[in-house]
Formats: sequence, C-alpha cells, structure tokens
Amino acid sequence: MDRTDAESLDELDPLAGWRDRFVATEGEPIYMDGNSLGRLPAAVAGAVADGVRQWGSRLVGGWDEWVDLPARVGDRVGRLIGAAAGQVLVCDSTTVNLYKLASAALGCQEGRRVIVGSARDFPTDRYVLQGLAGRAGHTVRAVDLGPGPEGAEQAVLDAIDGDTALVCLSHVDFRDGLRLDGRRITARAHEAGALVLWDLAHSAGAVPVELDEWGADLAVGCTYKYLNAGPGSPAFLYVRRDLQDRLAQPIWGWFGQADQFRMGPAYEAAAGVTSYLTGTPGVLGLIAVDAAVAVIEEVGVAALWEKAQRLTALLVERADARLGPLGARVTTPRDPDRRGAHVSVAHPQAWVWCRVLIDQARVIGDFRPPDVIRLGPAPLYTRYVDCFDAVEAMAEVFEAGLPASPPPGRVT
Amino acid sequence: MDRTDAESLDELDPLAGWRDRFVATEGEPIYMDGNSLGRLPAAVAGAVADGVRQWGSRLVGGWDEWVDLPARVGDRVGRLIGAAAGQVLVCDSTTVNLYKLASAALGCQEGRRVIVGSARDFPTDRYVLQGLAGRAGHTVRAVDLGPGPEGAEQAVLDAIDGDTALVCLSHVDFRDGLRLDGRRITARAHEAGALVLWDLAHSAGAVPVELDEWGADLAVGCTYKYLNAGPGSPAFLYVRRDLQDRLAQPIWGWFGQADQFRMGPAYEAAAGVTSYLTGTPGVLGLIAVDAAVAVIEEVGVAALWEKAQRLTALLVERADARLGPLGARVTTPRDPDRRGAHVSVAHPQAWVWCRVLIDQARVIGDFRPPDVIRLGPAPLYTRYVDCFDAVEAMAEVFEAGLPASPPPGRVT
Repeated sequence: MDRTDAESLDELDPLAGWRDRFVATEGEPIYMDGNSLGRLPAAVAGAVADGVRQWGSRLVGGWDEWVDLPARVGDRVGRLIGAAAGQVLVCDSTTVNLYKLASAALGCQEGRRVIVGSARDFPTDRYVLQGLAGRAGHTVRAVDLGPGPEGAEQAVLDAIDGDTALVCLSHVDFRDGLRLDGRRITARAHEAGALVLWDLAHSAGAVPVELDEWGADLAVGCTYKYLNAGPGSPAFLYVRRDLQDRLAQPIWGWFGQADQFRMGPAYEAAAGVTSYLTGTPGVLGLIAVDAAVAVIEEVGVAALWEKAQRLTALLVERADARLGPLGARVTTPRDPDRRGAHVSVAHPQAWVWCRVLIDQARVIGDFRPPDVIRLGPAPLYTRYVDCFDAVEAMAEVFEAGLPASPPPGRVT
Repeated sequence: MDRTDAESLDELDPLAGWRDRFVATEGEPIYMDGNSLGRLPAAVAGAVADGVRQWGSRLVGGWDEWVDLPARVGDRVGRLIGAAAGQVLVCDSTTVNLYKLASAALGCQEGRRVIVGSARDFPTDRYVLQGLAGRAGHTVRAVDLGPGPEGAEQAVLDAIDGDTALVCLSHVDFRDGLRLDGRRITARAHEAGALVLWDLAHSAGAVPVELDEWGADLAVGCTYKYLNAGPGSPAFLYVRRDLQDRLAQPIWGWFGQADQFRMGPAYEAAAGVTSYLTGTPGVLGLIAVDAAVAVIEEVGVAALWEKAQRLTALLVERADARLGPLGARVTTPRDPDRRGAHVSVAHPQAWVWCRVLIDQARVIGDFRPPDVIRLGPAPLYTRYVDCFDAVEAMAEVFEAGLPASPPPGRVT
C-alpha cells in the first residue's frame, strides 16, 4: 500500500468528521498516544467551563445535582462496557478502585489463597495485588503472557484452580495490546469458584466489552485514554449487581454510608453499588467524564471498534514493511481477534528512537520498558494517513541515524 | 451593637478588597457556608481554563510538568499549616488519605490495640477508623467531646494510654467548631507512645496550624472549604519527615513506586513522602488547588485568623442577643481560644429553620444533625454586615413562624 491508499480510507471514513470536534493542538503533531492521554474534545472544554460557573453561581447548593454524578456518569460509562444501570460508578483513581474491589473480593473467598494475575500487567495492577497479597497471606500467581496470544490465554486458563480466590487481568495488555477473551476466562474462573476483576483501561471507548454478558464480577478502568476526559480524570468501577451487598470494600467513607446526611454514629454500608464510593467525589472531573463519554456514546463503540481494527491492521502492515527491515518487530498479535486498539513495535533502541521521533518528527507515540514503542491511534480522531505517516517518520528518523542518547526532558 | 457597628468594621477591614477577587454569585445570597464549599476565586476559574488549554495543546507531553503537581502543590499547602517542604502531598480524597495514613500508623504500632477518636467527629473520620479497627482487632475509643471545651480536651487527654496506637481527631470540630490544642494533645500522645493524625478540614486556610512545631505525626485535610479549590477538589496529607520511610501505606500504586517509569516487576516504595501517592492524580483538580492556595498564601493565615476571630465574636454576640430569646443556643465555645472559624446554633427546629432561611431569606448556612445550624463566615470574602444580617434574617424568619416541614429539595 502507499499513502494514497491511506488517503482513500480517510475519504471513506464515516468517522472522519469527528476529528473537528477536538480542540486543535499546538504545531499539529501526529498524535499516536490517545491510548495514554486522549485529546481534548471541545465539548469537554465547554462542560468544564460550565461546571466552574455552576460552582461559582450555585455554591453549596450545586451539591443537589453533583451528589448523584458518580452513579449517573457511571451508568453512562456502563453503556459503553455492556453493564446495565446501577453497577458502575465514576470515582477515585483506577489504583484506588482496584484496591477496593480486589480487597472486597479476597474478603469473601475464605480459604482460597491465590490471586492469578499477569506478570506483565500494568504496574499499578501488579503492585496493588502484591500489597494485598502480603497483608493476608495470599500469593500472586503471575502468569507469563509472553508466548504468543494463544499460549498466553491458555497459560491464564491453566493457572486458575480450586485455590484461586481472584483472577485480576487487563482485558487489553498495556504494553503489547494482547486482548484476552473476557467471556472464556470469566467462565473458567467461575467454574473454579474464583472471582474475576477486569481492568478495562485499554478497552473502554475503543474495544467492545460486554461485562454483563461475560458474567464478569468486577471491573475497573480509567477515563483519560480513549474516553478523553483529561489528565487524571476520575476512574470507574463495576460491581455485578448480585455481588454488591455480598462483598464489602475496605475504605469506609461518608459517601458509601446509608442515609449519608443523617451522619449516623456507626458505618452502615449503603445498599447497592453506592457502598463502593468513599469520600467526596471530584465534581469537575466527573463533569469532564460525563461530557467526554457523551461523545463516545453518540459515535458508538461498534463504529469505533470497526475503525480501530482497520487502523491497527494498517499499522501492522506498514510496520512489517518499513520497520521490519530495520530490525524492529511487531509485538502486537497479528490476529485481529487477539488484539486491542494499539500496536507495539520492539527494538533495542526503542527509547532513543521514540524520543527522537517526538522531538524531530513531531510524531507522538510512547515508550514502554524494556524495548517497545507504542502507537495508539484513537479511532475517533486519528486518520489513516496519520498511521501511514507515523510509520514513515519512524523509518526516516531511524535511517537518518539515531543518537547514542535521547534528547533531554520528558518523563513519560 | 447595631448594623452601623458592623459597617464600621467592614470599612476598617484590611481584607475587604479581597471580596472582589471572587466571582459574583447568582442573586447575591449572604453566603455563610464557606466552611462547607468555598466560593470561586476568579484566579481559580482562570487557572482551570488554562489547565484545560494546556491539556489540549500539550497533550501527553503535559505530564512533564503535571507529574510533580502533588508534591509541588503539597509544599504550598504545607506553608499554610506549618509544614516544611517535602512532607505534604495533594492527592486523593480526605477519606482515602485518612485510610492510608491511619492504616500506616496502625501497621507500625504492634501490640497496641486502641484508636482514640471523637464520638462526634465528622462521619468519614469515624467510619474510616471503624473499618480499620474491625480488620485487625483494634478498638475505637470514641471520646465524648460534649461537655464544654475544657472538659472535652481533658477527656481526650485522659483517653490516651499505653495501649493507644493512634489518636485521630479533627483539629476543629465540624459541627460545633470546638478547637483542640494540637500541641498539647500531640505531646500527651507521644508521651504515651501513640501516634497522632490530625484532620485539618475545618482549619486549613482560616485557623493557625503548626504541624512541625506541634511535632504532629500525620495529618489530612480538604481543599474545598476555606481553601476555595472547588467541589470535591483533591485533598492533602502530611507525613512527618522521619516517619515517611518507617510507615507504609497500604494502597500500592504506580505513583508511589520508586523510579515510576521503569515499571519494575516488584513494588518498591519511593523514598520520602512520594510513597503516599497511589494512582494517577487528577490534574485539573490539582491546578485548581494550586491557584486557590496561592490566594490564601498571598493574604496570609495570620490576617485571615485575625478576621475570623472577629467574625465569630460578632456572630456569637448577635446570636445571643437575637436568637437566645427565641430558644436557640450557641454551641460553639465562647472562649476564642477554644473555637475555629465557624459558629453553630442549636434549636429543636434547626432543620426547617435552616431551609427556610436559605429559600426565603437567601442566607445560606447549613444544617447538621441532630439540631444545629452552622454559620461559616470565610474571612477572605465574608463581611461583618453579612454576619449581622444573617442573624437578623434568622430571627426574622423564625418570628414570622416556621412551617411544620421544610421546603422541598436540597440534600446537603
């Protein structure tokens, strides 16, 4: 394929118009990091400004509406991940939500001592589980998801046994984009009497998720990647309806209390998913999530996923053609049924390569240790030509010769 | 005193000009709830708008600066509460921070089984302690702070003994405004080998706090009251420098990890206060706190406290004169050395009275169960005439006859 093929795909793209609903960026880089921090939808900028005005004019009376935001915006997120109303909240960070839900799960699995996770999962997921395991004598069985997608999934299935209390995995792996079969792993876990907690950080808003259909128990995810709600926007959590009153999360705060404003003497968990709230929720962040998710809802996950698959296919094809000869290797599964919405390329000089790419070619991907450059097109605003040009730029800066050390700055 | 006396105080008020630095409110109510949700400083509205623009234009590259915000804004909050740099972070909610710090404290107090708290503390404080106590066999010794300020403080001192692991108290009581002697209670706790965790929610930004001088161990607080950072803005936490590496908080996230972006296999707590971070911090919230605290810093806590004392004195005087005859009773200590920056008035009909006051007289205070109306003037923007008029309005709506049930709506 050549660039005109990519241009043709853009001309036929039913989502092409959505790009204009995002605020223009300085210097117009080719942004391939929507899986780390999504771009700013104009609607979100407007909603945050309105939220600030609302605070200014309604003052404490604004809480009449704000108090329901975690549940109301949660229901909205729920519609993107196949969760019926009353099971999702937007609150806290992904880390804190992982802690609350994993802790709640372990607390009701008396006698089972193993947590099954991934050895290459996102750091926070691994660390939260390590911390919880150390507290009550659990062991983390960290599965190696390295040996190809089929092998990886089988390794997970094999790791689940009668001693497994909890299976906690990312639906889409942050580094290589491996996508696990949510339904199959959930079923296997239940067969063994284990609970399952899915991290949907790299799925929500781009990759189909059907929590209710899978029979999933618990889930968490962030809203600042494909959902475009801004840096560090509040995260979400899902607790399946019939588990809500059976499990108990450990952080007892006034927003999780039954009849909150009675302020009674003893903690009494609110009924339903509300008990998974903790403290006062961040209103501006919630307003941003609300507006951001409204955009995704309007487009629909099906259309986004359709385009995401075409974008990743193009990236894989171009990476093989242009970067393979330079010694780079696509680490994302080639089978579209086994990957999420981003594509990763491994090379021993990935760190320097990625940094030069950003600084000299204004192509913004990101590096993940030890040796991967991630290219995360966002179906809502990334064009096919962006993917084509990103790989071309990668080839060009490499062919021009990489320096021994990267340009200064940049922490992420 | 009459209204002209209040007007004279306003004329002489060195802080009078600061009122104009706040965004005007709809219908210009008399706002006496700055101790619940502070008003919107124009500087904060501007900073949030800039933050949104920064996200839009710098995209993921913005993290080069944002990553340090919890510590940088934390140091700024620290200057308001007598904490040298490197001991305060802005992150999570007050509830989550209470949980992290109380849990960390209990974890290093092997063999001590008692948590000393207040039976009338803010719900979240009580609930967090109850949850933690239930987990590892601790008992909460809930002190009754009812019997007058002297008695209350003595009751706290008497409750601390050799079995006390942690003393966790609000510096200023949310309901009645009782202010405890931070230095004295900290000293007594240390004498007994206990650690102390102060909740500064009703102190920070209006009441002098000297954590380093007191020798305090731990503290938390919120930023949406006197600090004016907006509804649900991120909270702060303080861990005294020499305790930072000795204590361990339970929520192990990637922002608390040493060498975060190496993403190593095992959790290794970062050195210093950083290990008390958890997940990705909310950037817009942090930017709001930064700008809001800058305003307080410019004015200075000493000047704010000076005015706060005069405002509460005026309120107590007026409440005695006008509301006493109506059967209401000031429950805030009359001794200025024993109270914070708000004044509470108890009456059996407080709930209906408060609601009528808001709806008919546009005087916004708040109700706290079972029978209290709180009047929380904020020294930065509340005028002496506002305090005078608020009490007059209270008397007038009462004298006009309260309905049997309150107007509809309003949850807080």
